[in-house]
Amino acid sequence: MNEQNGKNKTIITISRQYGSGGRFIGEQLANALGIPFYDHELIKKAAKASGYAEETFENAEQSATSSLLYSLSLMGELPLQDQVYIVQTKIIKEIAEQGSCVIVGRCGDYALRDFENATHIYIYSDLDIRAKRVAEFYSCQAKNVLDFVKKIDKKRSAYYNYYTGQKWGKVSNYELCIDSSKIGIEGAVNVIKEFVKYK
Amino acid sequence: MNEQNGKNKTIITISRQYGSGGRFIGEQLANALGIPFYDHELIKKAAKASGYAEETFENAEQSATSSLLYSLSLMGELPLQDQVYIVQTKIIKEIAEQGSCVIVGRCGDYALRDFENATHIYIYSDLDIRAKRVAEFYSCQAKNVLDFVKKIDKKRSAYYNYYTGQKWGKVSNYELCIDSSKIGIEGAVNVIKEFVKYK
Repeated sequence: MNEQNGKNKTIITISRQYGSGGRFIGEQLANALGIPFYDHELIKKAAKASGYAEETFENAEQSATSSLLYSLSLMGELPLQDQVYIVQTKIIKEIAEQGSCVIVGRCGDYALRDFENATHIYIYSDLDIRAKRVAEFYSCQAKNVLDFVKKIDKKRSAYYNYYTGQKWGKVSNYELCIDSSKIGIEGAVNVIKEFVKYK
Repeated sequence: MNEQNGKNKTIITISRQYGSGGRFIGEQLANALGIPFYDHELIKKAAKASGYAEETFENAEQSATSSLLYSLSLMGELPLQDQVYIVQTKIIKEIAEQGSCVIVGRCGDYALRDFENATHIYIYSDLDIRAKRVAEFYSCQAKNVLDFVKKIDKKRSAYYNYYTGQKWGKVSNYELCIDSSKIGIEGAVNVIKEFVKYK
């Protein structure tokens, strides 16, 4: 696909249950399509590199009072978490305006809801299979991996629902939802490639 | 795919919002794969042809007292709607045991939940687009097509939730969910074909 105009850009957002392999699918999809990939870490880097609100992300992690005061002077008296959300959304939009990309997490589907050509995907899987995957791939040390996976999902869900006013994992937020445990990473990548062919 | 054993059968169930084109997708998918297609009407015919509870479906439509009494003697004092559900579920299982097939509606995903190799799909679409499709394709005479579409969905949802104890349209009931308005009938057929390749 060429990018002579916005219509021909391939913009894909991926939301995913913890342990479903959604990040891997996003990364391999971006490689297969030859377009940039962004996850939480890379969006954070892009935000810092952009120059504005450079310290917001640091504040969110360190909660240093002096930096916090600096940020509040920039964005009023918003809670730090909200400031981070605003900056991330701004960055996601800038990334999508620049060209084709795959964006994983960070409410990307909501941030790009007005980007007509963007494809929003949800990756999910059985809880047992996700717990097994988390235990294997992330060397999870939690005593009860099932509970750990459920806890992370609860956090993702709460974050998404709070900032979007929508319900995380509800089909109507997405254009394509795939149970990755049924067809694996490679299968999911190829199903998404087939989907975007028809957009 | 050959059918030397159950594992190699291609069994697909499709649940769909009213007006999403799910039945057309199922029919074209079955044609493309060269396997039998069953919708509500064809399951009804198969139930009648099977010989048992031949009159149940007639009763459900005609509510003739004499036939009703005949059916009650066969299946105890279950409400007629429940008798129809039981016969349909039995027929769906028999169809799936016979070989590859595409089954649309009738809680097919729930009826075949223990068929390990079955692929369960949900087709949905924006309400406005579905209403437009219903008005065009079905020459809908309803004054307010939007309300008419919502009413049919409510009935499908209530039927599914009542008999399965699950929530209609919830991603975890399905392996693949597709917004048909984004890629059309042909696109959806090809995305499903790609999905079943990896099963």
